[in-house]
Amino acid sequence: MSEKSIRQLHLGAFIFGVGHHIAAWRHPKTDTAGLFTLDFYKQFAQTAERGKMDMVFIEDVPSLPEALEVAVQRTVPVRAEPLTLLSALASVTERIGLTGTVSTTYSEPFHVARKFASLDHLSNGRAAWNVVTTGLGEASGNFGKDQHLAHAVRYERAREFVDVVTGLWDSWEPDAVIADKASGLYADSAKVHPLEHEGRFFSVRGPLNVPRSPQGRPVIVQAGSSEAGQEFAAQTAEAVFTAWQTLEEAQAFYKSLKGRMTKYGRSPDSLKIMPGVLPFIGSTESEAKLLEQQFQELVAPEVGIGMVSRMLRVDLADYPLDGPVPDLPDADYHINDGKSRYQLLVDMARREKLTIRQLISRVTGARGHQTIAGSPEQIAAHLEHYFNNQACDGFNIMPPYLPGGLELFVDHVIPLLQRRGLFRKEYAGTTLRDHLGLSVPTIPERRDSHQAAPVSSLD
Amino acid sequence: MSEKSIRQLHLGAFIFGVGHHIAAWRHPKTDTAGLFTLDFYKQFAQTAERGKMDMVFIEDVPSLPEALEVAVQRTVPVRAEPLTLLSALASVTERIGLTGTVSTTYSEPFHVARKFASLDHLSNGRAAWNVVTTGLGEASGNFGKDQHLAHAVRYERAREFVDVVTGLWDSWEPDAVIADKASGLYADSAKVHPLEHEGRFFSVRGPLNVPRSPQGRPVIVQAGSSEAGQEFAAQTAEAVFTAWQTLEEAQAFYKSLKGRMTKYGRSPDSLKIMPGVLPFIGSTESEAKLLEQQFQELVAPEVGIGMVSRMLRVDLADYPLDGPVPDLPDADYHINDGKSRYQLLVDMARREKLTIRQLISRVTGARGHQTIAGSPEQIAAHLEHYFNNQACDGFNIMPPYLPGGLELFVDHVIPLLQRRGLFRKEYAGTTLRDHLGLSVPTIPERRDSHQAAPVSSLD
Repeated sequence: MSEKSIRQLHLGAFIFGVGHHIAAWRHPKTDTAGLFTLDFYKQFAQTAERGKMDMVFIEDVPSLPEALEVAVQRTVPVRAEPLTLLSALASVTERIGLTGTVSTTYSEPFHVARKFASLDHLSNGRAAWNVVTTGLGEASGNFGKDQHLAHAVRYERAREFVDVVTGLWDSWEPDAVIADKASGLYADSAKVHPLEHEGRFFSVRGPLNVPRSPQGRPVIVQAGSSEAGQEFAAQTAEAVFTAWQTLEEAQAFYKSLKGRMTKYGRSPDSLKIMPGVLPFIGSTESEAKLLEQQFQELVAPEVGIGMVSRMLRVDLADYPLDGPVPDLPDADYHINDGKSRYQLLVDMARREKLTIRQLISRVTGARGHQTIAGSPEQIAAHLEHYFNNQACDGFNIMPPYLPGGLELFVDHVIPLLQRRGLFRKEYAGTTLRDHLGLSVPTIPERRDSHQAAPVSSLD
Repeated sequence: MSEKSIRQLHLGAFIFGVGHHIAAWRHPKTDTAGLFTLDFYKQFAQTAERGKMDMVFIEDVPSLPEALEVAVQRTVPVRAEPLTLLSALASVTERIGLTGTVSTTYSEPFHVARKFASLDHLSNGRAAWNVVTTGLGEASGNFGKDQHLAHAVRYERAREFVDVVTGLWDSWEPDAVIADKASGLYADSAKVHPLEHEGRFFSVRGPLNVPRSPQGRPVIVQAGSSEAGQEFAAQTAEAVFTAWQTLEEAQAFYKSLKGRMTKYGRSPDSLKIMPGVLPFIGSTESEAKLLEQQFQELVAPEVGIGMVSRMLRVDLADYPLDGPVPDLPDADYHINDGKSRYQLLVDMARREKLTIRQLISRVTGARGHQTIAGSPEQIAAHLEHYFNNQACDGFNIMPPYLPGGLELFVDHVIPLLQRRGLFRKEYAGTTLRDHLGLSVPTIPERRDSHQAAPVSSLD
């Protein structure tokens, strides 16, 4: 790692159903029947690994959409549970990182700490946790909570949740396990520390029943881009997944987030910002645009109206499809979740004076992320332009359909990025921290009275 | 399945650390360093599959023992999280069942339903859930609960928990997914049902965000043998894991549990009783006994006293080691959890008039399960004797050390069982239900008003 002088891209391969485009499942190129088969994901992960990508990334919402009938009839609203899937992929891949989403609003920190530590062990240091607070109210009904927690409270809970999880990961010092068969000493109990956490949301005794894992701690990824989300990320995240439509927006976010890190005593390099990009790849630009057009034509009208109505909290069915998007207030005034995505759409509609039909067409493909349709050369140039202009540290690639959408990227775009010196030709290390250029965390010095021995640092 | 006229054994391969014997980790034959490596478990599962065993079985307690110092210094108290491990094994095995333990006391039913349904999909119908109520008070400190739930309340919660989980598994009818690319109809929304559960412990809206899995429902395994545990098993379990020291005890339990099923409208064949057995295998009986003796000598005295003291809720360090086990009251009088194991030890001490040292020596190896040390012939004959005398439907094999302890069983005992016609030579089906001879559950008829269409039965 330390010899690398040229800054290089980081690339995630983002799994979302049978493809990110909302109508992907209807297109002949898509393996829709693969959705719940191991082979489908195995092929995905092995393709991404062949491309030397940093990680596989899996999103999650632990519920079906509130608009159940349309969701079930017209979209693919079902998903394998992320950690089940990533664990299955751990044993059929060797190097690629495995990033899974788990919500802090509906889980217990002890379980989350233990699952990711277990995955980090079984994958030899490739686990990452994408921390989300779950933006959609519909999940609360599956977990016995009448009301979804307010945005601010969710972030307060999330902060405490992450503190507990990292505390549990730190509860076994790196050299605690001795396993000396002759003397019969398994571990040095002075290096195994109860947590004794008592907070507003959680009380957790610890220690974890898993020793310290190969990465020290699994990597912490974060995905909220609101004000609260940025502060949280600046404090705790090591990679951030985000959505931007323009270079200027991405640059402003990059500067804003990295600028917040110093006050938490962190170097800007210790957090990698990776916006989502949905690439339609053709051998020429017009072929790519035609492909995108084909996918757009497969979107059922009620799906597009429903999706954008939900993001904007306004029933767009009440407005003329070819009339302007109604003027909406800025985010802070009336919404609790999905703040940053809401604002992104409002800004886009204002800036480009879009009709409802145009906004729907722009949003249904990538849910607010940037779509690029072009030749491999055009896509590589686009990524390079963002990367070289302080807009990001890499990208989370969102194939519109699977498996082909990822294969084209790996076989045709990545070689161009490699030729430009922007992307690795071979993995230099073995862990996800190695790929992302992140150091192994040391255990903060303890102030409690439990321990006599000094805390040793990591090797 | 239906052609099979001879009743055959069912065999589980029970993973517990680096072996079931408490001192296993110290023995030269044991791969102690393998504990958190994928290769260790892969070898285990593939060996069991080579032996055509029904399932891999993983226990769990989501905490370290209360007596932290001794546990950490003298035993191997750490474990990978069971579902992380089973999911990793799903992709490196083809046929063998994958049974994981999850407690109903510290989990959310929506997560549990979803994880097992996901594993059932990704493994092509090999998932089973071992439902436990978590007998040890120490886990409560990791989940913000000051007091461990009383035994009766835990079972009440467990019953409701299982109802919610099976309800969620039933929320997608088997033929709900249509995925017609041309018309754009993904699923028939009349065949996807919200659960709308409102109970004492849980309120869960549903439906699950995973369609019905290959087994209809993952198999339900249960492990409590107390009065409450038996009623619960008679009502809901499809396999039961239990511990007995003598043929008479096992026969009494078999008769008692199977006898309770009729009142729930269930056939006794729809539940398989599989006691645990820890086999020390040698080419001769004396070689096997010598091996057992070697393991016993590696047990640190404080570990044995601590373990049995904990099971009996009495500090045995206060009594002379070679004096009699103090007389203790029957289970119902003063204990909240681990009832059946407590009673088993009390009965054994009374029946055989054991000293404390003798009781410790009997219990440390297999934690109350039966230990047999003998030649492959002797072990096969022992298993056959139990099986042919209404004591069980099979066994959960507990190798004292790994990997050798399982390999010897698969390579030397299973061939004898096959030769006697007691065990399959090849898997007849592909799912765990096929191996266990269990039918695919149908969805009970709904009485709610949500649906217009009749509920279709399974194919």
